[in-house]
Amino acid sequence: MTPSPQPGCLDGVRVLDLTQFEAGPSCTEVLAWLGAEVVKVENPKGGDPGRTSVGDTTHDSPYFLQFNANKKSLTANLKSPAGLDTVKRLAAEADVFVENFAPGAIERLGLGYDVLHGLNPRLIYAQVKGFGAGSPHEHSLAFDMIAQASGGVMSITGEPDLPPAKPGATLGDTGTGMLMAISIVASLYRRERTGRGERLRVAMQDAMLHYIRVAFTVTARTGVAAPRVGAKVISASNVPGGIYPCAPGGKNDYVYIYTSRANPEHWHRLLRVIGREALIGDDRYETIAARLAREPELDEMIAAWTRGRDKHEAMRVLGAAGIPAGAVLDTAELQNEPDFERRGIMQVMQHPQVGAFKMPGWPVTHDGATLPLAPAPLLGEHTGDVLHRWLGLSDEALAALRADGAV
Amino acid sequence: MTPSPQPGCLDGVRVLDLTQFEAGPSCTEVLAWLGAEVVKVENPKGGDPGRTSVGDTTHDSPYFLQFNANKKSLTANLKSPAGLDTVKRLAAEADVFVENFAPGAIERLGLGYDVLHGLNPRLIYAQVKGFGAGSPHEHSLAFDMIAQASGGVMSITGEPDLPPAKPGATLGDTGTGMLMAISIVASLYRRERTGRGERLRVAMQDAMLHYIRVAFTVTARTGVAAPRVGAKVISASNVPGGIYPCAPGGKNDYVYIYTSRANPEHWHRLLRVIGREALIGDDRYETIAARLAREPELDEMIAAWTRGRDKHEAMRVLGAAGIPAGAVLDTAELQNEPDFERRGIMQVMQHPQVGAFKMPGWPVTHDGATLPLAPAPLLGEHTGDVLHRWLGLSDEALAALRADGAV
Repeated sequence: MTPSPQPGCLDGVRVLDLTQFEAGPSCTEVLAWLGAEVVKVENPKGGDPGRTSVGDTTHDSPYFLQFNANKKSLTANLKSPAGLDTVKRLAAEADVFVENFAPGAIERLGLGYDVLHGLNPRLIYAQVKGFGAGSPHEHSLAFDMIAQASGGVMSITGEPDLPPAKPGATLGDTGTGMLMAISIVASLYRRERTGRGERLRVAMQDAMLHYIRVAFTVTARTGVAAPRVGAKVISASNVPGGIYPCAPGGKNDYVYIYTSRANPEHWHRLLRVIGREALIGDDRYETIAARLAREPELDEMIAAWTRGRDKHEAMRVLGAAGIPAGAVLDTAELQNEPDFERRGIMQVMQHPQVGAFKMPGWPVTHDGATLPLAPAPLLGEHTGDVLHRWLGLSDEALAALRADGAV
Repeated sequence: MTPSPQPGCLDGVRVLDLTQFEAGPSCTEVLAWLGAEVVKVENPKGGDPGRTSVGDTTHDSPYFLQFNANKKSLTANLKSPAGLDTVKRLAAEADVFVENFAPGAIERLGLGYDVLHGLNPRLIYAQVKGFGAGSPHEHSLAFDMIAQASGGVMSITGEPDLPPAKPGATLGDTGTGMLMAISIVASLYRRERTGRGERLRVAMQDAMLHYIRVAFTVTARTGVAAPRVGAKVISASNVPGGIYPCAPGGKNDYVYIYTSRANPEHWHRLLRVIGREALIGDDRYETIAARLAREPELDEMIAAWTRGRDKHEAMRVLGAAGIPAGAVLDTAELQNEPDFERRGIMQVMQHPQVGAFKMPGWPVTHDGATLPLAPAPLLGEHTGDVLHRWLGLSDEALAALRADGAV
């Protein structure tokens, strides 16, 4: 007998979401994927600036769709007394409140921690800022790239003799959002026993340190700043390893090959694949130290093999031989690879304005299935619905709020 | 009256941790930070290869300390029947089981999902692999860099006319571990109501797509692969922005400056700071499109100002003026900056072999405090303790297991 499917992990959890752009929305979106009812509170005049911040203004941007799937949208004018009062009443009914406004803004609006905690001691009140409380930069603005610069990520990314590069991944935003999501869900778990909410805060700069801890081990060992090493690995002691050029020689025609010092067989397997099995056991190549001294020679030996095939074939052959290997895949290749859609890693959102929109879903499978993807909401799409259900508002009361410009 | 401090969010949760290196350990370490009792099950002969994989072999590596804080260690020989039986009995008492062995290894050991689920239907059974179940690469090995290559991250990192670079952040490892941690804690939350565990799986390649969704929006708009843009922003439409050189001209002497199109004031404020207020309102510079056409001119105008001060002063002055700005800080500067230690973002672990070891703590503060940092365990440090408490084993039974080489 197949057991009945389980409900969403966070079914029944109510999240009042005052976030915009990405660091906050990526966090609340995960809660929505996991089943929480996430109600995005937006300014009636345009809403989350992420809706329109890049390119086309005739419909919600791909950026907005990516970070607001599965949520609901309610408009409220926080500058109007009735709008603000409505949001406070919603906060009294919520389990989680999340905001990532500029420093001090939420307090100026009258929705600071003390106010909402007073209304609802069970509330988990979560804030994402650029810099930490008590930091010399506490009052400064930040975006993803500012966090990646000031949190160390850029200093260890790029080529050795060139200026720092910014990772294409938006680690400052989504990377921070994920850490806050962990603390929020853990706090919900504790609240089942204690009945108490709490205040959670994370700074984007601080969050970056969590992701570069391997680089800190280099500094722990050497006493100096970890370097930039191009496509190599900062901790450096696995040789050979890196990206190797493949046919036909395009910008992303490379395969990453890695031989771990934890498993000396990787190197021997690689020698067999590239037709150099005669070197297995040869003292000139047998230890990491010996190979490190001959790194350019080894890299060329491997490249002589990789140049003869395309990256997909190289990855397949190396992988089948038990050697860690990965083709450098670009976003067009990933977007169009049927395997990701078949496995639910890429999913298609049916959006009322945009139509079919394909994007990455939540990558963790639960009992063998990926979590469902629902459209990002239109601005104010759920205002009436949420006010009815959360606050029991009558049609007349809702109409009055609308007439007042409060929602 | 100050309310009593709350217990750890995950106090009382038992995690049986069969992970090694980073993707798995970073996940279980977060659970430990949040209060779970995480018992690392290690091979008696050397344990987690991360203990010794880099550099010094006279004590546990900085790498191991970074990713195993707050955990316990129990040794078990999984090749011995009594050792394997002991781990199964522990699994029967656990809430969460996590492993990141090579594909198929956990099943070959006799600790696959079906076996442990049969023993303990409440168990949350979590697996981190390189490639997804059903992927053509399902049986292949992967490490951090393989995931960053094949998951798109490298294709969008580095200089436009050079090969791809690998972000210094270990997104393939820790980035994946964080997503699994979210699903685990959410599953624990649901289990409070359903009493049922589940199987969770994530692939490092798949997890990378979650972190590069902004790049996918570029592909959604253009139909082609997102490019590499050095230190600039891939989605590209905020001008000016990027890193600007500061005195005295060292490798990391840059400040990132960003002017968001969502707030036209950023540009005006920047003109004031750099002494070019005469250009405020000038049509040649007033729109994004106009500035984009003059980007090199603007970058030089800004650099003429930044070159005259060091990055810390530039960050301070720009930040105080309401312009998003961040100095490029390196790992030595971050490691030695007293502000991070004062705020608990960097904490000092007191390790019995290594002594004082400073590392980043969990960056989310709970009710104003950072979570405490306890030392990473010595190999087998808690074998007896855990077998007594979890299984009620007598001293005699423990001695027999030890004599047998099972633990």
